[in-house]
Amino acid sequence: MFTGLSAFPLTPMNEQGVQECEFIRLVKHLAAAGVDSIGVLGSTGNYAYLSVEERARVANLSVENAGGVPVVVGIGALRTRDVLANAECAQQAGASGVLLAPVSYQKLTDDEVYELYATVSRSLSVPLCVYDNPGTTHFDFSDELHGRIAQLPQVRSIKIPPVVNDIEKARERVARLRALIPSEVTIGISGDPAAATGLSAGCDAWYSVIGGLYPHTALALTRAAQAGDTQQVNALSSALEPLWALYREYGGSLRVAATIAEVTGKVSQPCLPQPLKALQGDDCKRVEQVVAQLDLA
Amino acid sequence: MFTGLSAFPLTPMNEQGVQECEFIRLVKHLAAAGVDSIGVLGSTGNYAYLSVEERARVANLSVENAGGVPVVVGIGALRTRDVLANAECAQQAGASGVLLAPVSYQKLTDDEVYELYATVSRSLSVPLCVYDNPGTTHFDFSDELHGRIAQLPQVRSIKIPPVVNDIEKARERVARLRALIPSEVTIGISGDPAAATGLSAGCDAWYSVIGGLYPHTALALTRAAQAGDTQQVNALSSALEPLWALYREYGGSLRVAATIAEVTGKVSQPCLPQPLKALQGDDCKRVEQVVAQLDLA
Repeated sequence: MFTGLSAFPLTPMNEQGVQECEFIRLVKHLAAAGVDSIGVLGSTGNYAYLSVEERARVANLSVENAGGVPVVVGIGALRTRDVLANAECAQQAGASGVLLAPVSYQKLTDDEVYELYATVSRSLSVPLCVYDNPGTTHFDFSDELHGRIAQLPQVRSIKIPPVVNDIEKARERVARLRALIPSEVTIGISGDPAAATGLSAGCDAWYSVIGGLYPHTALALTRAAQAGDTQQVNALSSALEPLWALYREYGGSLRVAATIAEVTGKVSQPCLPQPLKALQGDDCKRVEQVVAQLDLA
Repeated sequence: MFTGLSAFPLTPMNEQGVQECEFIRLVKHLAAAGVDSIGVLGSTGNYAYLSVEERARVANLSVENAGGVPVVVGIGALRTRDVLANAECAQQAGASGVLLAPVSYQKLTDDEVYELYATVSRSLSVPLCVYDNPGTTHFDFSDELHGRIAQLPQVRSIKIPPVVNDIEKARERVARLRALIPSEVTIGISGDPAAATGLSAGCDAWYSVIGGLYPHTALALTRAAQAGDTQQVNALSSALEPLWALYREYGGSLRVAATIAEVTGKVSQPCLPQPLKALQGDDCKRVEQVVAQLDLA
């Protein structure tokens, strides 16, 4: 399950609640496209901004509408207590796996993070993907810690942050991590602009934001990588460079993806929880131009 | 209210819930010592780790047991929706003021943070203190943004991060901020090791962690600063240097304060929510030594 394309949809919401019909439409689109898994309630799905009850509801809607495609549910929370509750709800909903980031308010120690994964993995009956995202968690995993956590029961994948845009250095980075983890634990790349390099460098999966909106585009890149067609992988990623430029300019993928979804009518406006905002004014116009340029509908 | 010593108690808790009797004892101790205000559910009070319902309960217990001392309640949350709910609960409980940090998972923009404060301040009938704590929120306020937010209704104080340990530079820093904010908005120092310099540099308040456990010690320093006795201020702070060394060594005040509270029997063990841990083993022994050395009971 933690191989190939894992597509991460938005969870469209406003101050009244989750826009369930819009979310279901996004999930059904991913299932119909044949993605390898659907990663709901990731950072793109704004898991951190929803209550345990809202997250349980989103998990249920996901599995019900995924048409048999494996659903991976984000269970991260500041408190271990809430992580365990989210894990239980995800399993009850029929999730095929869970995704766990060491979310922090107070900076966490290695020991605290290890204990978090040990406690949660003991409680699970489905596989877990370790979500390494220092940009939002402010926790930096050492490879040594990844190695220890990867030995825990149920741990089956690591979602790593972007690799550098240099295939040799990226290969070394993936190989270094690979040497420290059991063979059944996969490595997945995140940060869409790094996907081509990451997959070519030996990552088993792409945890993809743009795949949550344009699964066919992301699948083409993923399948080319799986076929070993590096030239095609690079061509497909280069074609999306105007999109990657937006990610760089606007501090990551979330606000860009949310703005694309809004301007193309996939979700209603606003789709992000306050205080977060999709891009406005001239920034929004730039996104519209890129959408037109790349013929993203 | 946002002047003098504002003492920030821990909220002792374990996986079953808040240890209410222990919390009440901490609050009553602060009230009896005559602190100028009690800042509950600050970072020291682990506000980010509690539900809206738990926070409402803590706010109620605080006001009921503060013996008329003004209570300031932390209302920060990732979502504006939850901040507004926390604000309403704090006001219902009889809080004299609220404290709001721009908590983030996705990094916030200046515009998003301004809108957060604008929305919340419109809903308030009690004064608000802006909580500037980049170490936990990962948001860096510019002075220009502080100036704009300080014009909003109900904003009456800014809790600033530690000033540099150089009285002239600290004076310049406080003066620069003061020039941008209305005269009725106070500036309070946080980061206990910086309190002496901050107060001597013109801060109106000390938002104090150690004051939440040892209010008499923190009051002595505060009163000396208010009397303009810089020599005494520096002597009192220097005497606590072994404690400040622990803060530096263990990444801030929370785990040190929690460990002190545990080893002196002010709270039961554990008092922090998982995955957070108080200091263990040799680290805990070092804290015990400092407690003995400084005669902290």
